[in-house]
Amino acid sequence: MDLKLESVSTSLLSKINSPSDLRKLSVDQLPQLCSEIREFLISHLSQNPGHFASSMGAVDLIVALHYVYNTPDDRLVWDVGHQAYAHKILTGRKEAFAHQRTLNGISGFPNPLESEADTFMAGHAGNSISAALGMAIADKSTPGHEKRKTVAVIGDASISGGLAFEGLNNASNHPNNLLIVLNDNDMSIDSNVGALHSYLSDLTTSAGYNRIRNKMAGFFRRKGILTDQRKRAIIRFNNSIKSLVSKKQNIFEGLNIRYFGPIDGHDVVKLVKVFREIKDMEGPRLLHVCTVKGKGYKTAEENPAAWHAPGKFNPETGEKLGKSDVPQPPLWQEVFGETLVELAKKDYKVVGITAGMLSGTSLCNLNDVMPDRAFDVGISEGHAVTFAGGLAAGGKKPFVAIYSSFLQRAYDNIIHDVAIQGLPVTFCIDRAGIVGEDGVTHHGLFDLPYLNCIPGMKIASPADEETMRNLMFTSLSLKSPLAIRYPRGKATKIDWKSPMHEIEIGKGRKIVENNNSRIAVLTLGPSLHDAVKASEILSDSGIATDVFDMIWMKPIDEEILLSVVKNYKAVVTIEDGALEGGFGSVVLNHFKALGSDIPVKSLGVPDRWIAQGTVNELKHICGYDIDNIVSSVKEIHSNLLKQ
Amino acid sequence: MDLKLESVSTSLLSKINSPSDLRKLSVDQLPQLCSEIREFLISHLSQNPGHFASSMGAVDLIVALHYVYNTPDDRLVWDVGHQAYAHKILTGRKEAFAHQRTLNGISGFPNPLESEADTFMAGHAGNSISAALGMAIADKSTPGHEKRKTVAVIGDASISGGLAFEGLNNASNHPNNLLIVLNDNDMSIDSNVGALHSYLSDLTTSAGYNRIRNKMAGFFRRKGILTDQRKRAIIRFNNSIKSLVSKKQNIFEGLNIRYFGPIDGHDVVKLVKVFREIKDMEGPRLLHVCTVKGKGYKTAEENPAAWHAPGKFNPETGEKLGKSDVPQPPLWQEVFGETLVELAKKDYKVVGITAGMLSGTSLCNLNDVMPDRAFDVGISEGHAVTFAGGLAAGGKKPFVAIYSSFLQRAYDNIIHDVAIQGLPVTFCIDRAGIVGEDGVTHHGLFDLPYLNCIPGMKIASPADEETMRNLMFTSLSLKSPLAIRYPRGKATKIDWKSPMHEIEIGKGRKIVENNNSRIAVLTLGPSLHDAVKASEILSDSGIATDVFDMIWMKPIDEEILLSVVKNYKAVVTIEDGALEGGFGSVVLNHFKALGSDIPVKSLGVPDRWIAQGTVNELKHICGYDIDNIVSSVKEIHSNLLKQ
Repeated sequence: MDLKLESVSTSLLSKINSPSDLRKLSVDQLPQLCSEIREFLISHLSQNPGHFASSMGAVDLIVALHYVYNTPDDRLVWDVGHQAYAHKILTGRKEAFAHQRTLNGISGFPNPLESEADTFMAGHAGNSISAALGMAIADKSTPGHEKRKTVAVIGDASISGGLAFEGLNNASNHPNNLLIVLNDNDMSIDSNVGALHSYLSDLTTSAGYNRIRNKMAGFFRRKGILTDQRKRAIIRFNNSIKSLVSKKQNIFEGLNIRYFGPIDGHDVVKLVKVFREIKDMEGPRLLHVCTVKGKGYKTAEENPAAWHAPGKFNPETGEKLGKSDVPQPPLWQEVFGETLVELAKKDYKVVGITAGMLSGTSLCNLNDVMPDRAFDVGISEGHAVTFAGGLAAGGKKPFVAIYSSFLQRAYDNIIHDVAIQGLPVTFCIDRAGIVGEDGVTHHGLFDLPYLNCIPGMKIASPADEETMRNLMFTSLSLKSPLAIRYPRGKATKIDWKSPMHEIEIGKGRKIVENNNSRIAVLTLGPSLHDAVKASEILSDSGIATDVFDMIWMKPIDEEILLSVVKNYKAVVTIEDGALEGGFGSVVLNHFKALGSDIPVKSLGVPDRWIAQGTVNELKHICGYDIDNIVSSVKEIHSNLLKQ
Repeated sequence: MDLKLESVSTSLLSKINSPSDLRKLSVDQLPQLCSEIREFLISHLSQNPGHFASSMGAVDLIVALHYVYNTPDDRLVWDVGHQAYAHKILTGRKEAFAHQRTLNGISGFPNPLESEADTFMAGHAGNSISAALGMAIADKSTPGHEKRKTVAVIGDASISGGLAFEGLNNASNHPNNLLIVLNDNDMSIDSNVGALHSYLSDLTTSAGYNRIRNKMAGFFRRKGILTDQRKRAIIRFNNSIKSLVSKKQNIFEGLNIRYFGPIDGHDVVKLVKVFREIKDMEGPRLLHVCTVKGKGYKTAEENPAAWHAPGKFNPETGEKLGKSDVPQPPLWQEVFGETLVELAKKDYKVVGITAGMLSGTSLCNLNDVMPDRAFDVGISEGHAVTFAGGLAAGGKKPFVAIYSSFLQRAYDNIIHDVAIQGLPVTFCIDRAGIVGEDGVTHHGLFDLPYLNCIPGMKIASPADEETMRNLMFTSLSLKSPLAIRYPRGKATKIDWKSPMHEIEIGKGRKIVENNNSRIAVLTLGPSLHDAVKASEILSDSGIATDVFDMIWMKPIDEEILLSVVKNYKAVVTIEDGALEGGFGSVVLNHFKALGSDIPVKSLGVPDRWIAQGTVNELKHICGYDIDNIVSSVKEIHSNLLKQ
């Protein structure tokens, strides 16, 4: 396998600890620096996994931006910042990079709490234009900041989202000098088209072109031809011709944002030239830059999707490491994806919708066999849910698969476009709970509280594949919305494709029963397995607990709650989510409504932000792993003994 | 005052009880029908207030749509449906219209639970394209539905929102025949421009034009000039010329949606002609229709903003009725608006942001005196919040004023773009709680639960102007986000502009103290006043209660909670919002954490959807008006006596 790893020294990178060090280099040293950064990325990411392909693709762009702009005083605002590893490396985090995405290490995303170079949180797609616009407008009226520059970098996937559009739509409303860099890594630079584009870009961005344009304008004005109104007409004419030639209706110009490009995003010298030319322009403008995912690592360039976040790999051969040959339980997402295909075969009404996460949610399974029934709407969570509402109103049975933290973007759509109308949309909420390495922006902690307050919403969380499948199956005959939440990672069984049957809404089950148990442990979702293991450990210490898999949070199993009140002295609840307004809180409210004062100890995620780490590390820190359950129960047990 | 109320009989309208009745008329009877509908609207809305100006503007469009399309089998999907009164009148709700927006009457918005003609909920702007797209795509694969038509009607304000853009961006991804009607009532049809537009529209929508185009295409194809690729180029050329001539970059064509128009939305005969011509086309297309708000009622045409929802008025003179000369307390929104101006004068960092609700939130006050510090971003709640995050990151002190139910659209932005970063954005949440006549889509019931689970979020609700002002003042020195919620309607005092001072975060106060009270009433927000009145009534019955104005839900006043545990036997909580995960639930959780089993009775909005009615009617139905408080306390009191 020819990986064409250029063998370069790291002589330049080793001297760079800040953007000002970078700016000491000459322009013609930048290509070598880019190579060194790529080598650095390959050597680190092959050992300590992260987002590979997009990071490799953005190296030249990042180097050029820090070279031309006076960062961190000038501000770069990233969007879904896992492309921005080179930015972290250039802004004082070269050493720390060995600990990216680990507990107490640095985040995989830009994070303002980590570095002043990270100007804004960049975990959810599409926010950079709005945030950067705020900064750019703030500068205009802040003494001493009038000359500061702000650059938003946004990918071609992110810019299709509603938030980015709202930002674009507002970009020209108030005076500002925002530069938006569209990092377009889907569009390959085909040589036929590219030459023309390149020519156009040269023309439109060069000072020479603007001189000619201004001269022409001056001429027309002197002749009395160029009134202000006509000037606008000429600009429109100009844009129309450009859009005609560039084979596109230019949406950006329609939104009063000057458009430049597309240009080759791997020609760092040219990028520097272009940035210098457009840096001091006034008014919002967009530079369209084309990059290749995985650039500089051939196997990744050829298959960027597989190299998005490849895990550990051999940097010499490209072989991915750490894959086990031993049969493994499926991922939760796979249980969803494969079960959905089975349901779709059974019922012609079944359709699946996701928002830019066809592989991430395993909706690709349905897409492979019935592409006309799988809808990936791009990073547009709000539309995904409202569209699903429309499909349901049109007689379909939609399953919407979105990650918990991204579903926050469709909150009003869930309420207004599904729940008020009682439409039978099934929300399959993936990555619910602690997600681990992606950290604070990606943990799915709030879905239980934010869904629980919605009237008519049913909420369940399976502990195993069989329950997951039965919940999905049961939703086929439901006439109202249902949310099924499940975590990132592996489910439980190797042989998991059980026959499906309907299960009772709001019905939990007792999993562990001991003699003389005085403590009941109520769990929601896969935390059940931790509770069962804790129960075994506690048995060895002579403490008997009974464990209930509640399955449903709404409606909750009142029968189990009544029997708990009657037969136990204390309750522990366990959930993989925020405790504020979550499962434990709901259980407590129900006990109170039943007139019971039984003591309840709720384990879950406390009311603070949780950074990155492994899932197990973070659960322990939050206080709801097996050890935590054991110690909580022991404490309750000893309190009971005192009574 | 010459109102030019045409005197027409209602001879046509009186015979129409369904769209099929309408379709029995001849085209040339339609102008008269439109006049009759306008007369009907004027006579009803002058007595039973509602949304006037936009409803008057949409009459001709609605008549033409129901005339050409086979409704309700063909489907009309409205967007912010308060324009759709004529639709209600034509679809069997002419009699019921006398009871629109009242308890047990019909909703002011389209509502699928009310009529099959209302195909989707239409209270929040921008959802029609996504919903209609779902229906149109569902039809394509539903036996017997393949020929059904779907039309989304969207206003020019709604279409600027991110959700509408996401819908447009996805409209051409899957085969469908969706027609989007852009009801543009901001752009007046000026005669210079309009004639050209009208000509263009005639040309592009007439069968004749398409025949010519097809002939030309045939000619080119025969000559070997028109390959498929060139055909696309010609279409682009066509579009470029159109966009040039129409003085616009045509964004819709850029999104692969065929664009027709603009045409005069008050020429019902022409509308019928155009709809007939484009009805059977395949593929998504957009018809741009220009209408005048208030059309047919001269004084409303002249001042559409004042006639958006004018209240009762004299139909002959246009005089608005029911305005009191007696001095009144300010609206809560005015307390916000005027206080913000005071703060902005004090602190140059203060800025205000709203999303299409400059008057509705009273941010217009700031806009009047400091337009460069007031930002109305249009119906783009997500952008409003992320933009505010950017302004805060740029050193400003942003106050974001958005209605509670609309803020649901910015939920992820609150979490990701403000709260995780701890940015000092102050959310001024207007219309929090029951809003009355606007009904189920507009009640602001969920903000307490959906904000409470966000770490680091501070949440307060003032009971009076002084507290509101002090909260806003206090937020100037806060380094973290704060949410201040307040309801629709009037605050408390006529003379309300007290001097402002900082107040302690998380500190409530005792308002009513009686001897030997065994029951503590804890309130959040203006429900305090109901509690105080209830306490007086209860005193007369010999039942002593103490009343606490908690002011803060997060952080909550633990000192008060501890003293309550110590000194009382039972607690009543009152909140104007959803009980699930709300204030009462938080109080209960805190008592439990303090180890207390004190009985808590929580009054607020139960876990079901609440329709329209007056605020007082709805509070009573939900169980938290003065009477409800009195009876709840009496019941608790009698239970305490039994113990």
